[in-house]
Amino acid sequence: MSPKQINKLDASDKLSGKRALFSVPEDVIYLNGNSLGPLPSNVQHRLNSVISEEWGKDLIGSWNKHGWIDLPLRVGEKIAPILGAASGQVLCCDSVSLNLFKLLASCLQLRPDRTRILSQKDNFPTDLYVAQGLQQLLGPSSCQLDIVAAEQLADALSEEIAVLMLSHVNFRDGAVHDIAALTQMAHERDILVIWDLAHSAGILPLSLDDWNVDFAVGCGYKFLNGGPGAPSFVYVNKKHHDQFTQPLQGWMGHKAPFEFDPSFTPAEGVGQFMTGTPPILSLAALDAALDVFADVDVKQLNEKSMALAEYFLKLAEQQPALRDLQLSSPKEPVQRGGHLSFAHPEAYAICQAWGDVGIIADFRSPDLLRVSFSPLILCFEEIDRSVQALFEVMHHKTFSEAKFHQRRKVT
Amino acid sequence: MSPKQINKLDASDKLSGKRALFSVPEDVIYLNGNSLGPLPSNVQHRLNSVISEEWGKDLIGSWNKHGWIDLPLRVGEKIAPILGAASGQVLCCDSVSLNLFKLLASCLQLRPDRTRILSQKDNFPTDLYVAQGLQQLLGPSSCQLDIVAAEQLADALSEEIAVLMLSHVNFRDGAVHDIAALTQMAHERDILVIWDLAHSAGILPLSLDDWNVDFAVGCGYKFLNGGPGAPSFVYVNKKHHDQFTQPLQGWMGHKAPFEFDPSFTPAEGVGQFMTGTPPILSLAALDAALDVFADVDVKQLNEKSMALAEYFLKLAEQQPALRDLQLSSPKEPVQRGGHLSFAHPEAYAICQAWGDVGIIADFRSPDLLRVSFSPLILCFEEIDRSVQALFEVMHHKTFSEAKFHQRRKVT
Repeated sequence: MSPKQINKLDASDKLSGKRALFSVPEDVIYLNGNSLGPLPSNVQHRLNSVISEEWGKDLIGSWNKHGWIDLPLRVGEKIAPILGAASGQVLCCDSVSLNLFKLLASCLQLRPDRTRILSQKDNFPTDLYVAQGLQQLLGPSSCQLDIVAAEQLADALSEEIAVLMLSHVNFRDGAVHDIAALTQMAHERDILVIWDLAHSAGILPLSLDDWNVDFAVGCGYKFLNGGPGAPSFVYVNKKHHDQFTQPLQGWMGHKAPFEFDPSFTPAEGVGQFMTGTPPILSLAALDAALDVFADVDVKQLNEKSMALAEYFLKLAEQQPALRDLQLSSPKEPVQRGGHLSFAHPEAYAICQAWGDVGIIADFRSPDLLRVSFSPLILCFEEIDRSVQALFEVMHHKTFSEAKFHQRRKVT
Repeated sequence: MSPKQINKLDASDKLSGKRALFSVPEDVIYLNGNSLGPLPSNVQHRLNSVISEEWGKDLIGSWNKHGWIDLPLRVGEKIAPILGAASGQVLCCDSVSLNLFKLLASCLQLRPDRTRILSQKDNFPTDLYVAQGLQQLLGPSSCQLDIVAAEQLADALSEEIAVLMLSHVNFRDGAVHDIAALTQMAHERDILVIWDLAHSAGILPLSLDDWNVDFAVGCGYKFLNGGPGAPSFVYVNKKHHDQFTQPLQGWMGHKAPFEFDPSFTPAEGVGQFMTGTPPILSLAALDAALDVFADVDVKQLNEKSMALAEYFLKLAEQQPALRDLQLSSPKEPVQRGGHLSFAHPEAYAICQAWGDVGIIADFRSPDLLRVSFSPLILCFEEIDRSVQALFEVMHHKTFSEAKFHQRRKVT
């Protein structure tokens, strides 16, 4: 495409003004917003204020004066419209893993005659680990995780299943499930559903209330741009409020935490999903980051993200040097989340070499190059440059023999 | 005491230089460091750097480049000497409540023939709530919480008990338990111990390894000054490493999280206590805050804290107007943590009126005025002014009819 045509695409982008709300290095094209969203510029200011003014000057009084005590609910309220959820059903606290544990145990409580959790073999592993941990704790006669391939899910929805736990968008190939259809199929067998929206929130249009979803969790640090390890959100449909008590009980989920009653009485509604004291600095960063979404329709975000991905694919197809990259994502844009994945035996080294020239994508073991399209920060001209740079890497084979070694220990 | 005598006390204070490392308002005397520690001045700088440089510029690469991935272990290593713990046994993650859940379930796993958790009636309520949550989840035939009064603990240590869970310092009256003696008594009956060090870490000398403590948790935001809702720490004695798998399994506690294996294999040692992705901003604040402790002996901190408290009591005794404040803390300084508590029917209103003139203490329902002595920021002259101000409040009865109302909902 000619520079003029590219400029035309960018000129007609209604979201182009949003880039100015982020602080992204000039020499970087960031194709990894689904791992860690970029930095919204207002976060620094907000954290300065929370640290110096609130913590530093108002000290303990800030729990009331600056509303720290309500922040998990307030941030939940900000996230709710992004999920298609009415007020009072979303809370922001802890991690996706911990919130899944709370939800899975609650589902077993709501379906006392059933013991099975159904999930998908290539679900994000932490979701499976959480279920395995619960199974280990309760014993296999009280809790059993069944995992099947995606195409076997419908058949596996038997009346022994208490809860279906799935990720909306697959973290590897970006394939999306039809939440409405699967939720309805599950409900027909009286099965509860938990949707993990880690790769959906802020990039795919969601209608949790309309779809009659029971429970959901999601991630604050991916497309919501809340910063590294930002707290997770949890959605609890109003119809289930006050029907059960989640098991990770702590004082912040108590109905009256400052009465210091030795017996636990859960807070009403979604509030009982709090456990301990929330990490205010991390939560305030997410709160600030969400301001970017105040005047944005998720549908617009999704459309631009799809257009960027389609443009990427179109350019890549024109380059014979890129043919060794096997698209592992669905071809239909509406069947994908916000990223594309390509299989290549040297994916790790290619990702490193691409990164060396400023194009930041992601590698997922064993052989996937994952490319994400954050519509708030990217323009078409950057996609053009990214593909060009990838061509250089692949054509001249500038990637090394580097292999993936994960880091784990204190060094 | 004459101003000259007070100045002499302050002049001989070897910790007086530490105040300059904190940012505390000039017009405030902060007697609440056991609820929320004051702001160490280097935190702002560190967070600026984590936000603008690490997140903003190095983006996803910061997990390795800036060691975010190891931060929970590195912060644990910084806390270890404060606890009297050798390397490799302390991790920083999640909240006290969540870490207690992990530990309690692990203890039941380590003592498969026993089902009872023993704790104290006036333990901090969240500790009891966690045990109640586990009991509810497992059923009373698999897990039963017994709570008794402090003086009945020794007698209650029967061979039905799997684990004794206590707070070292009582959150109300500041009374301390003898960790060494109780741990030994418990071990004689093959009972495991979990010590909650929320009000101890950073203010009382601790020797967890020497005392042969099995497990401990504690708080990052009290005497460690890590900021509102700073992550908790968890101590796992080396002798128990790799003997069990804690049940809140998530990808960050996996042996190889980036292999994305669908089956959970725990990380070695204390590393398995990680669950989800840690809140890096909150964790980095705690990491910076801990620098203050690098060249400080906890014994020194404890001695100064005791001296400040004794000075407070001595001055208060000289004021007839303060006689209505009933000391509910132990009289012997070595039997107390870092705070004093006084009972008064109008404790809430008194605390508010004292706060109105810049002396920030704490109210604990129903009738306690809690006064904490953070040795890193306080001087004797401030204790003198505090008591003088309290005298003014009590003598002139400037406190109103204000009653305590807790805030809970989004308003």
